[in-house]
Amino acid sequence: MQPNNNFQSFSTLKGELLPTIYPFSSEEKIRETLLNANDAVLPYGKTNFVQRAVFLETIAQNILALGEDLLMQAHLETALAIPRLTGERDRTINQLKLFAALLREGSWVDAVIDTAIADRKPLPRADIRRMLQPLGPVLVFGASNFPFAYSTAGVDTASALAAGCPVIVKAHESHLGTNKMVASAIEKAIEQTNMPLGTFDTLIGEGPGLGQHLASNELIKAIGFTGSFKAGMALYTTATQKRKTPIPVYAEMSSINPIVLLPKTLEEITEQIATTLSASILLGVGQFCTSPGLIFVIESEAANSLIELLAHHLKVASSGLMLNQTISNAYYLDRKKLSGYDGVKIIMQGEDESSLYKATPTLLSVSAAHFITEPLLQKEVFGPCSMIVFCKDQIELNNAIMHMHGQLTGSFFGTTEELKEYNHTINLLQQRVGRLIFNNVPTGVEVCNAMVHGGPFPSTTDGRTSSVGPEAIKRFVRPICYQDCPDDLLPFYLKNKNEAGINRNINGIITKASIE
Amino acid sequence: MQPNNNFQSFSTLKGELLPTIYPFSSEEKIRETLLNANDAVLPYGKTNFVQRAVFLETIAQNILALGEDLLMQAHLETALAIPRLTGERDRTINQLKLFAALLREGSWVDAVIDTAIADRKPLPRADIRRMLQPLGPVLVFGASNFPFAYSTAGVDTASALAAGCPVIVKAHESHLGTNKMVASAIEKAIEQTNMPLGTFDTLIGEGPGLGQHLASNELIKAIGFTGSFKAGMALYTTATQKRKTPIPVYAEMSSINPIVLLPKTLEEITEQIATTLSASILLGVGQFCTSPGLIFVIESEAANSLIELLAHHLKVASSGLMLNQTISNAYYLDRKKLSGYDGVKIIMQGEDESSLYKATPTLLSVSAAHFITEPLLQKEVFGPCSMIVFCKDQIELNNAIMHMHGQLTGSFFGTTEELKEYNHTINLLQQRVGRLIFNNVPTGVEVCNAMVHGGPFPSTTDGRTSSVGPEAIKRFVRPICYQDCPDDLLPFYLKNKNEAGINRNINGIITKASIE
Repeated sequence: MQPNNNFQSFSTLKGELLPTIYPFSSEEKIRETLLNANDAVLPYGKTNFVQRAVFLETIAQNILALGEDLLMQAHLETALAIPRLTGERDRTINQLKLFAALLREGSWVDAVIDTAIADRKPLPRADIRRMLQPLGPVLVFGASNFPFAYSTAGVDTASALAAGCPVIVKAHESHLGTNKMVASAIEKAIEQTNMPLGTFDTLIGEGPGLGQHLASNELIKAIGFTGSFKAGMALYTTATQKRKTPIPVYAEMSSINPIVLLPKTLEEITEQIATTLSASILLGVGQFCTSPGLIFVIESEAANSLIELLAHHLKVASSGLMLNQTISNAYYLDRKKLSGYDGVKIIMQGEDESSLYKATPTLLSVSAAHFITEPLLQKEVFGPCSMIVFCKDQIELNNAIMHMHGQLTGSFFGTTEELKEYNHTINLLQQRVGRLIFNNVPTGVEVCNAMVHGGPFPSTTDGRTSSVGPEAIKRFVRPICYQDCPDDLLPFYLKNKNEAGINRNINGIITKASIE
Repeated sequence: MQPNNNFQSFSTLKGELLPTIYPFSSEEKIRETLLNANDAVLPYGKTNFVQRAVFLETIAQNILALGEDLLMQAHLETALAIPRLTGERDRTINQLKLFAALLREGSWVDAVIDTAIADRKPLPRADIRRMLQPLGPVLVFGASNFPFAYSTAGVDTASALAAGCPVIVKAHESHLGTNKMVASAIEKAIEQTNMPLGTFDTLIGEGPGLGQHLASNELIKAIGFTGSFKAGMALYTTATQKRKTPIPVYAEMSSINPIVLLPKTLEEITEQIATTLSASILLGVGQFCTSPGLIFVIESEAANSLIELLAHHLKVASSGLMLNQTISNAYYLDRKKLSGYDGVKIIMQGEDESSLYKATPTLLSVSAAHFITEPLLQKEVFGPCSMIVFCKDQIELNNAIMHMHGQLTGSFFGTTEELKEYNHTINLLQQRVGRLIFNNVPTGVEVCNAMVHGGPFPSTTDGRTSSVGPEAIKRFVRPICYQDCPDDLLPFYLKNKNEAGINRNINGIITKASIE
């Protein structure tokens, strides 16, 4: 961060400041962006789904067309490896295409029609129709750890644009060059597909200042955020308490993704579990929201062997470059804090390599009794750090899980027989997560219809939604109902004639038929 | 309200205290109720939809079986007429049956299944399934103006129970006898259908004290509320800021339900509009959340005639008994405040009959210019009070609507041609309401699939939902996803065999088929 109202990114890869200087958006630019977004609400909201689908597909094409240049820029700014970035770029493009496909099919809009019953007694029934309509301008915050998939044209932007909402992206200060390139791809698509001015823009500024300023503006109608608990909660407080009109905040904040290793399975495949787990802990230098930070075991010989094996795998792993200076400094501070709590033992931890912006893995352990009494043991350490929780028996395991905060995911390793035995434990964990995983690690989020990427607080501020998959579009809409509206004035998808050929619920029956 | 930790209802109908004394729930009872609700989360959440449907149907039967006694009790406690109460009781029963039918059909649970693809490159795809699951104990606040439909077994309770959530009702202090009878019908149904202890209970206590105490308890996972803006916002602040874990609040609070009378239509059917409008203003002594409190006209002869006619209709109407003393006192205070603002003219207002607990109608007028500059003119006066807003032209009308707060409903009276001319005005109003009505008044909420009863803040705290119709169930659930879960352990509705015969999205196709 710079004193002169501009940013210059520090590359942990090169160990130096990158040459380009990005000035903060001016007050005038910020005001204009908000007004343009507001002006775009009606014209963009009125575009039909095929137009929006073409728009999203064009963004995808334009991003792909940026080719190696874009990947190299992101590589410089995030230190993420090119193959990882290529995969993430492709995922981002696929997300855009997924929402385009959802729009082309059209049934997501949840059209429900109850036709009039003129001769109903005692009173006639009106013609009542409803569908989902966009909320208005959405403020999206770019994430440090996903320069593509959760940033400028990431899933929040893609789903909000699909929903018919103009988007303003607060660019993440650690990859402003990437943001600029992706934003240009979106802006080009706006021109190519003739979308209204104000459909998309991006602003640059010091995080808490600009973020709070935008979040408290009445023209903003919803917020998408991925980042720290502190920043997410600051936005949540502003959105719910510091505006005339509270708005929804979809903040994905903090998750330590517990893994429960059931005793028989742990004994049978100790080595396999150690290999899988350590790979998951190390993946992306632990900089994933689904990184496994908590491992529950019941005291046993096998549990001791697992720890030895895990410690070994983590010890021999090379340290990894972190996304930026702030994150690498925080990693060592947070692990120090975590390992300082009562009862926490350091199984292994690498040297402090923050001067090289690298994270070395950390493995800690603690008893369930300590875990239960100290909620701060559940604070996420962002990076390759995991903690084993030793439980005496199933009862203590259940008790520990009952004390666990909300998480994005929870995993069980166990045979079907063993899982049945621990059915109650599974039920308890289910109440605290968005995704339950069996015999696998939480890293690797499939983009598919059934995915839920979300979970109870504090993993997100709104566990009723998913930020991955088609459900994400539902975050930026609300139902509006039309009573006795003349057909000419009804929204396209509610008219008698079902020109779009979508599924509609007509008098309780799902059908693609038109109304005679 | 009584000093001795108990309530004795005052009947505005009889003009005296009713004999029965209702003691406040003891601290022990409150604690026990919360713990029982928490204990019921798993067993009640695991009941299948047919079991829950039978439970809801049994509640409906039991309420009906209370017969005249229940109607008489509510009549005494609310002064609402027996025919109105009979209608409301039947609506309450129908709501319970609507959710029972939704449960029996089962597809509401939104089951989505993406089956595994073992040979996918570069990585195999896991089997991923999701469905909606209950949030946990729901706190419901009884409403003063709907002793049945929005109270003990009202739509919040019915939808939460349908969703699989235990319910705790904070009884409304003005109809505690009605609450007791309806609660007994629910408790009897719990026994008859063998539902777990803690599935339902009701508590009595001084509103802000008990309400805040319950809302801030971590065992409560969602809140349903219908009432004043002040009480709703107090709950919202507690739920979002004063708990370790924020929870959703569905508070329906304040709506003045604007009606726009387009000039040509107003001129053509002035008398008909005056008759319809005055009936809607007077309905239920104006004690409906959809009561029309705001009427937009463009200055004209016809507008002047309308006002004369309206004033006449309201003047000749007899005054009506209000629900309770607090409400009748507030009515006269609030109308006095409203008529005191700059530019407000009193067209007609009846005598203050608060000593008789009766409301006399009120008709006020104001210019759009004043309306635009004074937001307090939008404060709801609960009762038969409406304000005409005079606009110079369509531009001023649009401007006034752009300054309007969120509402449950908005109505237009106009021919199709005229409505087309005012299309932009309709678009502007649509952004501010949950239901757009054409050529009719907002009172009379149809319970049907397409209904949206909800709207932007401050009409509710969450405009993304509806508290009437099947959508209401979605307020109390969240999606949970199961990755590679053994079939034996999957929830009933996600197993390979589709025994319930519900619609499921399997690999993108909606089908009732089982998975081979």
